[in-house]
Amino acid sequence: MIENDMKKKMQKSMDKVHKAIKIGNGHTILSTGITGDDARMAKAVVDAGVTMLEPNHPALALARGYKGVTSMHNAEQIRHEITTAQMAEATQGVRNVVGNDIYITVGIPGGFTETVPRIITDEEFLLMSLHGADGLHTHKSSLKDLEMLVKKAHQYGLCVDAYIGLPTDLHTFGISAETPEEVAHVASQMESIGTDMIGMMTGMSYEGVEAGQIPASLHERLRAMVEAVHVPTLGEGGINLTNYQAFLDTGVNILVVGTAIDKMVEKAAQDAVKEFLLM
Amino acid sequence: MIENDMKKKMQKSMDKVHKAIKIGNGHTILSTGITGDDARMAKAVVDAGVTMLEPNHPALALARGYKGVTSMHNAEQIRHEITTAQMAEATQGVRNVVGNDIYITVGIPGGFTETVPRIITDEEFLLMSLHGADGLHTHKSSLKDLEMLVKKAHQYGLCVDAYIGLPTDLHTFGISAETPEEVAHVASQMESIGTDMIGMMTGMSYEGVEAGQIPASLHERLRAMVEAVHVPTLGEGGINLTNYQAFLDTGVNILVVGTAIDKMVEKAAQDAVKEFLLM
Repeated sequence: MIENDMKKKMQKSMDKVHKAIKIGNGHTILSTGITGDDARMAKAVVDAGVTMLEPNHPALALARGYKGVTSMHNAEQIRHEITTAQMAEATQGVRNVVGNDIYITVGIPGGFTETVPRIITDEEFLLMSLHGADGLHTHKSSLKDLEMLVKKAHQYGLCVDAYIGLPTDLHTFGISAETPEEVAHVASQMESIGTDMIGMMTGMSYEGVEAGQIPASLHERLRAMVEAVHVPTLGEGGINLTNYQAFLDTGVNILVVGTAIDKMVEKAAQDAVKEFLLM
Repeated sequence: MIENDMKKKMQKSMDKVHKAIKIGNGHTILSTGITGDDARMAKAVVDAGVTMLEPNHPALALARGYKGVTSMHNAEQIRHEITTAQMAEATQGVRNVVGNDIYITVGIPGGFTETVPRIITDEEFLLMSLHGADGLHTHKSSLKDLEMLVKKAHQYGLCVDAYIGLPTDLHTFGISAETPEEVAHVASQMESIGTDMIGMMTGMSYEGVEAGQIPASLHERLRAMVEAVHVPTLGEGGINLTNYQAFLDTGVNILVVGTAIDKMVEKAAQDAVKEFLLM
């Protein structure tokens, strides 16, 4: 008896995404890292024009110093131990301060292919849906797993963004597709099962690539994805101020930016305390 | 049967404070705000040389977007609803990433004169003691209340920093004392009941004061406090890079800095996202 209620919720959510892309003349950023899960920082970037935010469980592991992890690489190993209740609390807090016009997609344990398999229960989907999430930021590694996730997420009014990766990626953050043809094929399949936004993991090595550029192969893969689907597209990983324009040139709509902002924020804090301490 | 264990814990904690002051040639900062409760930011400032940190419950209310508060003023009204368990989680997380050589003093509900009176139970003192706290950052408003708190805190191996305020302060963050004579008297009383560090609220209006200076009356009150006690001294409120030297000139040992760092950090995030969005 709430099927259409949930559908309407998702439509409202996707309206926010389309509006964000339109305002940015075809592109925008999805701000994550410390700006995704700390309400103070989320408010700050929203005040500066950001309209899409992404709290996620590995970043929360870092925020909470969970098991002492201090690098994203180590956080990925234990992120599945963060609870959905913690993600719901963080998401609700961000929602409280940024208002309803901001799109919030959330990484939760089980939404990624975790180092230890983790089921998302119906109660957890509902919990996120009721605590400020527009959607789930996911990193499943097979089309079948993604399809089951999308079905459940939609049942509870949550949109889904999902990703394509390379078989050689250090961490498994998506469904494998290597050549542009494979990418186009997988992206189409992802769209056909109802994925609301389709992205590509772009955090590969930039070795041998000129500053400000991205590898030609990545450009081609991104182009193939963008051309293959009708839903908004994303790029995630290794995106910074230097190579941002090269990413935009592929036509991708939404660039996920976390580490680049976190680094600048951490440097600002370090510069500040050094000035105090050196007086 | 753990009285001496707790005493030894406190001695180790105060050794960290004395070391921090010595390394800084008589002064250091107590870093709070986002650097006090977010493990990523705590790690960043510790890497930059900070050795004293302060997570506190009003800042955590802001971090978690609790009830949608976005200003410290509003956070003070509802900070008592943050749980000691939340403070323990945040403190343990910070401890996990900064190691044991850093002094951590924690503001917990009931440690301040709250808008709604709040008792700290024995279980809560123990919880903080076992979750990474060296001490409690307190803002009680009478000597009697402070004495009871100090006694309990010491029983559980927690040092206490406590503050002197003005009767006219907007928020009650300390025991009232106006003239330098009153300040010296109250500071001595605070020391005699075992307060481990004694501070003054300095976040008053700087109107009519030259940039980089502090009011003469504040200078005199800080001097009176510094001269009256043998324990380390603190200043809290309104301290920034511009007036920091004027504070140091009073001889105060530890300057609590939160908002000044938070503002720089938030600006760094805003500058970063604006660059991305304007491309």
